[in-house]
Amino acid sequence: MTTEEDNTVFVGNKPVMNYVLAVVTQFNNGAETVSIKARGKAISRAVDTTEIAISRFLQNVEKRQITTMTEVVDTENGKTNVSCIEIVLGNRVHLSESPR
Amino acid sequence: MTTEEDNTVFVGNKPVMNYVLAVVTQFNNGAETVSIKARGKAISRAVDTTEIAISRFLQNVEKRQITTMTEVVDTENGKTNVSCIEIVLGNRVHLSESPR
Repeated sequence: MTTEEDNTVFVGNKPVMNYVLAVVTQFNNGAETVSIKARGKAISRAVDTTEIAISRFLQNVEKRQITTMTEVVDTENGKTNVSCIEIVLGNRVHLSESPR
Repeated sequence: MTTEEDNTVFVGNKPVMNYVLAVVTQFNNGAETVSIKARGKAISRAVDTTEIAISRFLQNVEKRQITTMTEVVDTENGKTNVSCIEIVLGNRVHLSESPR
C-alpha cells in the first residue's frame, strides 16, 4: 500500500546512497512513480540520486518530469527565498522506447 | 548576432548574480532562448540562477525544458561520473498563458 506521500524522497545532507536506496526500495515495493525533492544546496544531490538510481539500479525507470520552483522559508533573519527541485521518476511504459 | 554557443551560460563557483547578469544580458541582446548548464555542486546554483532571473528580471521568459544527465570526466584518480543539468529558458510565446 503506497500513498502519494509515501512516494516522495526528500533529499538532504546525508550521503547520496541513502537516497538512492530509498528510491530503489520504493520502486521495488511496487511504486509506479517516485518523486525526488530537494531544496538549496541539496539540489545537486537530488540530481546525483536520480542519475545513480536510474543508471545503476533501475533500468526500466525514466525521468518523467523535472520542475524547479522558489519557496519562501522563515529563518532567524526573516523570510528568504530558496530554490527547489522536483524530479519525478516513473516506470517506462514502452520498453522499446529510446531512453531519454 | 548570436550563435547557439553564445546562448549558453555555464554556471560555476562564482556568486550567483554573475550568472543571473549573464542570462539577463543575453535576453536583452535579443536571444530567443538561453541555455543554463552546470555540473556537480554548481547544479544548485544553476537552479538559483534560473529562479532569480525569471522572478526578478525576466517576466516574459519561461522555463522551456530541464534535463539532467551524467557525464564522464577524467580526474587525477581516473574517470568519474558527474551529474549535469541543462535548463533552457525562452521567451514566452503567449503572454496570456499562465506561468509554469
